[in-house]
Amino acid sequence: MRSKKKLPSRAAAGLAGENEIIERIIKHYARSHPMLKKGIGDDAAVWLAPGAKEFQLVTTDMLVEEIDFRREWITPHELGRKAIAVNLSDLGAMGARPRFFTVSLGMPGNVTNRQLREFYDGLTSCGFEHGAVLAGGDLSGADKITISITASGESENRKVLYRSGGRPGDLLYATGTLGKSAAGLKLLQQGITRSRSASMREALRAHRTPEPRCAVGRWLAQSGNVRCMMDISDGLSADLPRMCAACGVDAEISVEKIPVFAESALWGCDPLELALSGGEDYELLFAVPRAKEQFLKNMPAGFPPVARIGTMLEGNGKVWIAGGGKKWRRLAAGGFDHFS
Amino acid sequence: MRSKKKLPSRAAAGLAGENEIIERIIKHYARSHPMLKKGIGDDAAVWLAPGAKEFQLVTTDMLVEEIDFRREWITPHELGRKAIAVNLSDLGAMGARPRFFTVSLGMPGNVTNRQLREFYDGLTSCGFEHGAVLAGGDLSGADKITISITASGESENRKVLYRSGGRPGDLLYATGTLGKSAAGLKLLQQGITRSRSASMREALRAHRTPEPRCAVGRWLAQSGNVRCMMDISDGLSADLPRMCAACGVDAEISVEKIPVFAESALWGCDPLELALSGGEDYELLFAVPRAKEQFLKNMPAGFPPVARIGTMLEGNGKVWIAGGGKKWRRLAAGGFDHFS
Repeated sequence: MRSKKKLPSRAAAGLAGENEIIERIIKHYARSHPMLKKGIGDDAAVWLAPGAKEFQLVTTDMLVEEIDFRREWITPHELGRKAIAVNLSDLGAMGARPRFFTVSLGMPGNVTNRQLREFYDGLTSCGFEHGAVLAGGDLSGADKITISITASGESENRKVLYRSGGRPGDLLYATGTLGKSAAGLKLLQQGITRSRSASMREALRAHRTPEPRCAVGRWLAQSGNVRCMMDISDGLSADLPRMCAACGVDAEISVEKIPVFAESALWGCDPLELALSGGEDYELLFAVPRAKEQFLKNMPAGFPPVARIGTMLEGNGKVWIAGGGKKWRRLAAGGFDHFS
Repeated sequence: MRSKKKLPSRAAAGLAGENEIIERIIKHYARSHPMLKKGIGDDAAVWLAPGAKEFQLVTTDMLVEEIDFRREWITPHELGRKAIAVNLSDLGAMGARPRFFTVSLGMPGNVTNRQLREFYDGLTSCGFEHGAVLAGGDLSGADKITISITASGESENRKVLYRSGGRPGDLLYATGTLGKSAAGLKLLQQGITRSRSASMREALRAHRTPEPRCAVGRWLAQSGNVRCMMDISDGLSADLPRMCAACGVDAEISVEKIPVFAESALWGCDPLELALSGGEDYELLFAVPRAKEQFLKNMPAGFPPVARIGTMLEGNGKVWIAGGGKKWRRLAAGGFDHFS
């Protein structure tokens, strides 16, 4: 059970926000089941069917037109790729191997046959690259394009990484670059949908067709040296507190260590702000015991870089940030504003 | 991969309709996978994980406000029940035991905390009654309430019933009453949301909180006497041709044998038309070899009645209907108009 930063109007109206709703759902509706190893509250649910060699993992994500994307900003093929990628990212973040997915599509009457075909092309080609096959779905009319995908995967050697499990003293790492997708979104909001600049193209690509870190996630899970992992879908300021809360720890991170997308300053972005609060990077966040960190030097070529961004501390879910000439301050969820 | 009759505007605009889209998806994107026993094109996908005792089944359905329901016509609790019921019906129609489900919810800012709670109450209580536990989900903003549920189930003794497998000469059966849900919808469309009349209440209940036939479906699958099965979600005139096409047969049905909801004539409905084209009954349609039909006499008490409505014939997907003083005529998909 996950939520993107999609319910801003609720808080303004005095209604429960996304984290609060999820907490209530967990409190009231989470039920134990002999087969269920992990239910609501992680990147994917995990269960073990009688006799099965491996755990089965399931995750679901919904994309809604004009909230998650605009048709002017993304081609149907890219949209298909992105819709499955955000689900595969959840499976990768637990170390699972994607297997199957279903897609429910709500579509307005003005979606053409060609757009539909391009969407399914993108969807199935990205799925195929990561080993996942389209197994079913549903079609519905709708005012806005609405895509709901549910993806299933399998563990390898029953090694699954949860958000929980990190301990005080563990080192925190992130893959790739943070804030790049949000920098691409800023370009789109400025009306720039294509560019000759390599960094602009890179940002647009990161936003439109994020690459799920399935292979890295599996390698990290198989290493046996990672205590906990999740994907960064809402920015560090929202996701790291979630991991800390799940682990029952605090964390401190250093501004200078965060792998920001510095080039975005060229088009008026604050790279640090985007790394902390931008979202949609779909990179991996994970914790490693200090004594084990050497194993990361053996990462296969072709994997994205990993950056050591901080440390876990005794605590209960708070995140502290320092650097940039400032003292340690609390980093509130989604609240870079409170830091700058 | 299933579709309800939700894309009427596409045909009018010269775009591919639901059956055509699904055919194209199957043609272009269906891929074989060693674990996958049945992909797109049945009520649920079926696979077998390495070592697992049982098949795993997965189905998904999307409900969209103002297309599938109106807030004035259904309480949040009933909507929750219905949203999971239509998915459980797909599992029941293959003889599976429901296990887990995920729900992605797109919601406008004006959904109150209380409505949310009632929705999840309905969702989880209906799921629980049939053995299915909420295992995860996603939340999103949206203009219209959009509910996408994916439900997983397990076979029993690896006995799964598909749409295919029926043969010429097999007898066709339907559970319960057909057209009752559509009769309830007609009441709502006439502004009647509650009533003292028992038959009106029954119709409203059938529309708002259909009961998935999971127990009956399992019993039929376990009997070993059923050749094929599906649920009737779009009315006989749409669903029976789908079953016939999957089996590679024709079928003939008799007007007099169809278990219509005759009481609906009291409020101006044509009971036969609603049974053929109304939809949302979520009853079971199945085929039994003529030599085996005696086993149905041993159905446990408390199960719904079953009606023998016709016979499978040599053919390729066509359905013929007779009775009511008329000669045999072809029943077109969704096309009762062509019959009357």
